[in-house]
Amino acid sequence: MKVGIINVTGYIGVELARLLCRHPHVELTCVTGRSAAGQKLGDVFPHLASIDLTIQAELDSVDLAFSALPHKSSAEAVRPLVEAGVPVLDTSADFRLSAPDYKAWYGLDHPCPQYLSQAVYGLTELHRKEIAASKLIAVPGCYPTSAILALAPAMHHGLIEPDIIVDSKSGVSGAGRTLDLGTHYSEVNESVSAYSLEGHRHLPEITRELHKVRPSGPAPAVTFLPHLVPMTRGILSSCYAKLKPNALPSGKAAIAALRELYQDFYRGEPFVRVTAAPPQTKHTWGNNLCLIYPTVDVRAGRLVVVSCIDNLVKGGAGQAVQDMNLMCGFPETTGLDAPAIFP
Amino acid sequence: MKVGIINVTGYIGVELARLLCRHPHVELTCVTGRSAAGQKLGDVFPHLASIDLTIQAELDSVDLAFSALPHKSSAEAVRPLVEAGVPVLDTSADFRLSAPDYKAWYGLDHPCPQYLSQAVYGLTELHRKEIAASKLIAVPGCYPTSAILALAPAMHHGLIEPDIIVDSKSGVSGAGRTLDLGTHYSEVNESVSAYSLEGHRHLPEITRELHKVRPSGPAPAVTFLPHLVPMTRGILSSCYAKLKPNALPSGKAAIAALRELYQDFYRGEPFVRVTAAPPQTKHTWGNNLCLIYPTVDVRAGRLVVVSCIDNLVKGGAGQAVQDMNLMCGFPETTGLDAPAIFP
Amino acid sequence: MKVGIINVTGYIGVELARLLCRHPHVELTCVTGRSAAGQKLGDVFPHLASIDLTIQAELDSVDLAFSALPHKSSAEAVRPLVEAGVPVLDTSADFRLSAPDYKAWYGLDHPCPQYLSQAVYGLTELHRKEIAASKLIAVPGCYPTSAILALAPAMHHGLIEPDIIVDSKSGVSGAGRTLDLGTHYSEVNESVSAYSLEGHRHLPEITRELHKVRPSGPAPAVTFLPHLVPMTRGILSSCYAKLKPNALPSGKAAIAALRELYQDFYRGEPFVRVTAAPPQTKHTWGNNLCLIYPTVDVRAGRLVVVSCIDNLVKGGAGQAVQDMNLMCGFPETTGLDAPAIFP
Amino acid sequence: MKVGIINVTGYIGVELARLLCRHPHVELTCVTGRSAAGQKLGDVFPHLASIDLTIQAELDSVDLAFSALPHKSSAEAVRPLVEAGVPVLDTSADFRLSAPDYKAWYGLDHPCPQYLSQAVYGLTELHRKEIAASKLIAVPGCYPTSAILALAPAMHHGLIEPDIIVDSKSGVSGAGRTLDLGTHYSEVNESVSAYSLEGHRHLPEITRELHKVRPSGPAPAVTFLPHLVPMTRGILSSCYAKLKPNALPSGKAAIAALRELYQDFYRGEPFVRVTAAPPQTKHTWGNNLCLIYPTVDVRAGRLVVVSCIDNLVKGGAGQAVQDMNLMCGFPETTGLDAPAIFP
Repeated sequence: MKVGIINVTGYIGVELARLLCRHPHVELTCVTGRSAAGQKLGDVFPHLASIDLTIQAELDSVDLAFSALPHKSSAEAVRPLVEAGVPVLDTSADFRLSAPDYKAWYGLDHPCPQYLSQAVYGLTELHRKEIAASKLIAVPGCYPTSAILALAPAMHHGLIEPDIIVDSKSGVSGAGRTLDLGTHYSEVNESVSAYSLEGHRHLPEITRELHKVRPSGPAPAVTFLPHLVPMTRGILSSCYAKLKPNALPSGKAAIAALRELYQDFYRGEPFVRVTAAPPQTKHTWGNNLCLIYPTVDVRAGRLVVVSCIDNLVKGGAGQAVQDMNLMCGFPETTGLDAPAIFP
Repeated sequence: MKVGIINVTGYIGVELARLLCRHPHVELTCVTGRSAAGQKLGDVFPHLASIDLTIQAELDSVDLAFSALPHKSSAEAVRPLVEAGVPVLDTSADFRLSAPDYKAWYGLDHPCPQYLSQAVYGLTELHRKEIAASKLIAVPGCYPTSAILALAPAMHHGLIEPDIIVDSKSGVSGAGRTLDLGTHYSEVNESVSAYSLEGHRHLPEITRELHKVRPSGPAPAVTFLPHLVPMTRGILSSCYAKLKPNALPSGKAAIAALRELYQDFYRGEPFVRVTAAPPQTKHTWGNNLCLIYPTVDVRAGRLVVVSCIDNLVKGGAGQAVQDMNLMCGFPETTGLDAPAIFP
Repeated sequence: MKVGIINVTGYIGVELARLLCRHPHVELTCVTGRSAAGQKLGDVFPHLASIDLTIQAELDSVDLAFSALPHKSSAEAVRPLVEAGVPVLDTSADFRLSAPDYKAWYGLDHPCPQYLSQAVYGLTELHRKEIAASKLIAVPGCYPTSAILALAPAMHHGLIEPDIIVDSKSGVSGAGRTLDLGTHYSEVNESVSAYSLEGHRHLPEITRELHKVRPSGPAPAVTFLPHLVPMTRGILSSCYAKLKPNALPSGKAAIAALRELYQDFYRGEPFVRVTAAPPQTKHTWGNNLCLIYPTVDVRAGRLVVVSCIDNLVKGGAGQAVQDMNLMCGFPETTGLDAPAIFP
Repeated sequence: MKVGIINVTGYIGVELARLLCRHPHVELTCVTGRSAAGQKLGDVFPHLASIDLTIQAELDSVDLAFSALPHKSSAEAVRPLVEAGVPVLDTSADFRLSAPDYKAWYGLDHPCPQYLSQAVYGLTELHRKEIAASKLIAVPGCYPTSAILALAPAMHHGLIEPDIIVDSKSGVSGAGRTLDLGTHYSEVNESVSAYSLEGHRHLPEITRELHKVRPSGPAPAVTFLPHLVPMTRGILSSCYAKLKPNALPSGKAAIAALRELYQDFYRGEPFVRVTAAPPQTKHTWGNNLCLIYPTVDVRAGRLVVVSCIDNLVKGGAGQAVQDMNLMCGFPETTGLDAPAIFP
């Protein structure tokens, strides 16, 4: 099966290339990137020199396509593919939100709202069946992946009050490859900062998906605050919510009971691991795992869940490949089973 | 005035030496450190080679002493000084808590509980007068300094519900100079992790001091979660609490009103700055400032405050010097006015 | 084929486990480590949780063994295996040097000098045939791998005077997992330093192997200076030597001619790439490549070669697996063909 | 005395501001920067918020000016000041080289070659008297400062052959604040690379100044190779040259003899310290020291000298202030005596 990557020249694009070039059931036959068109992929990205492809301006005919373009450009680029019935996995925000939400958060009229109803939100663990049946996947954002997976079991069991706080810490690669003073080495190295305090674009995905987990409950009121930390890869999300009265046994027993609920919820999931000790982002470096550590602040009666992912893998390219595996009927872990690289 | 540092060989100890050696009104005459006794200070710490002192096993006679020993050892070491009437600034936890709280959180009977009533909690901005009148200062922990200063104005004005979350991100120097796999370079570099999920020892200070700001209100229920981030210095604390109904004007006006309350609260404070944009820890590297950015998540009706300090300066040695200035009647900023080093 | 790792708990050990667990022709059946004996491998190293092994005190029966013990302990541990005819790849220094050199550089009488003559130096590109025929491999040190591969073509063609300088910059993982102030995060972060200025133990390997490349020439006089740089993985070696008169065409033509000699020398090598632009260590993160950029300082008439490897892969575990592939008759790249992870 | 900074918005510019704002004998009255003109200095650089200045488009009248503009723009900007007799310290390359060398290395005709003869090379330790008598200082580059100070004593005493290698490792701030993929966080973090292999612009300064130290000897043939390492500040230069026969006692005695020569050479220098142990760049973070460790590779008969500076202080802004102190008759260490910040 021939697959292509639209806009290979960003960090999600190269990560897709890295994963797809070793996938046993697909052949990466085409990569595009306007700024680097005509150059060998390995000249622009030496770590991909084993892939013998020239970056093209436009996509050749393929059986399935990934888009790693920014929002708006992505919808415009994949529209003809969607129309032609080519399966598409879009890692941009373009097919994640309803048209009104898209307008509200991205300040744009959606370029092709008629296709939104076909799109499936590609958070594999929550939408496995719809993904398998779809030809247009909106691959989730990196922050939502870490937050939703951390909170879904608690939401599902109705353990928590709707007031939720998600405090996320991300490596700098999440900000992409476009030059900016905010990602200039000397400005971000040895520093932590919060950003998007007025509201980050990943918030509506988080809120909607958490509500979907338990649609009978009230819509959660999520405060989501992202932070930039001086490392290249990884997201750690710390999630907080008040436990409902009697939702769990009292005292320390609550922790064990919670842990069991989480383990049951994710039993059999190849890429979610409920850990016995608080995880480090480093334990996911380069692989598709989401590590989740749920606990209870017994003094305050509060749920605390910490989750870790590699923002470019489970938070982007890896999840896209996981979704492709489902769409194509491949075993879900195909091409994604290499352990993280540590240290 | 002759001053000495007990246990100069940790990071708070050397930071005290760095600040005191240039203080115009005191003379650093003695530094101790058992493991390095007999060595020149500049041989152990080359950046302090301009200080011509030999590390001693025991403290000489001084007019005022700083202790940078770990808890328990510190109380034992400063007891004779306290008895002799020598003013002491203790950067350990030994004089921060009541005897029962100390027992509960540190698992030890307090070595000299009879002196606890003399001790003043050295968070300068909240206890200026008591500090000036005291001879025994419990210098606050680094996390509490960042959290309490971030939340004190909101507490003071009764803006928030008692459910409070403090999510702190700290550089690795906060873990000290003692060898540990958790601070081994290859283990922590390029990684973020949460720790002390079962409750961190800095929690009782935070809770008590926030309550003291508005003793008429209920005791806050604080969930405090510290995180280790891959950088040497700095703490950023993100603090969250639900706003009380009608505590602030509705909509975006809440943000401006909040900001004004914070500016008024800290007006004239030389080391607290309410910033117009979200701060970075890097903006405090090496100096005694606490930068605070208060805002409101208007959608969720929630207070969000971000604060930054250098954990070794305002979070330790700098605040100790600030307290000493008060105790000695020096202008409060003496020896502490160098700008941060950026980038 | 059953393989085992002696002392899995260091960084070379876990890297061997990471590579071997996905190798299609071997089965990792046993890992040892005294300090962690009895614990699940995945509990000590969460990134290896997919490997279902318990760390043992002693090695079970295996068909081939890797030792990742420190020197001296390693020779002692593998001696019974060697005696029993089990193929062994030793990543320590124990079988790299002659007994007198070992005594001179490690200050010890060799524990089993009788086996030194059987040992083959496992720098694959220079000793492929001997490795394939051997049952005891001394896997080269990380620095020698980068230095020897960088200089071998120039030595082979007799291009350079015997005065050679190798200036190497290494990530901190090269110093291992043992706690030390020199690898304590806050001490090494944001700092570069040189070490072993009195002579590093990897020097005799470098000198001997370079001489072996052209035994008819004089023994080179190598000055080798290692540096610690604040990153986890990677070695970049910058190598300098005066060009012999007329060894290359004059002027800029020398550069192209040199490059061609290097490309010819390494033609067909799967893990050595002569690059068109100066490489970054990051381009080898996690994989087995050695990237080499040879050039000429035309003004000074000097050869300058820059090489990059991942110190834990081509500089350790990866090269060991490459050697194993040769010994077992597997294709040389088996289990080693994943691209580097970038960024 | 009123002083001004032309182009405060780069890293040398802000570092000048940081140092000058606390200098007891000058008043910083004006800072310029076209891109940020009209903004408060503290809004653009929060760490300088204590300096109450607005960034201007053009310089006001001052008694002495620093230029932190790039080359070419700098000469153009300072020309009217030079003509008006205002003392100028230029941190760009514009007054460092002769007009032909400038043309050769910077590819430009010099904008005002008529002033080159007035300019003094501001490497304080080697040109103290000329600096004190001059009104136009060419502040040296960061690399040349570290290399020349490391080698000057050996040159002075005629210890070494003219073949010299300088292998320098620099933090990323040396590349400035202009956006570039080569200083984009995710591209440089966790990576080391060599650059300017075809010849770096700082080479001619190094060669000329080393020759000047011993003009009777041959011009040295210097190979200078700069490397980028993942940290913000600091340069470590490792310098190598063959010792002349009998230049030093044989064996280990050479090391002690060399050390004594170096100590004598720099006796009384406030900012050069010949260290007893190999230095780290971190020991100079934020201050004006150059730490030098000279030794001999006894096996190879080679001089090895390691030097460390903070590239923005002794390698730029600090040395400029040191030169200003000389020009104005202030004690040379005025405003420069704060210890480095460690860790």
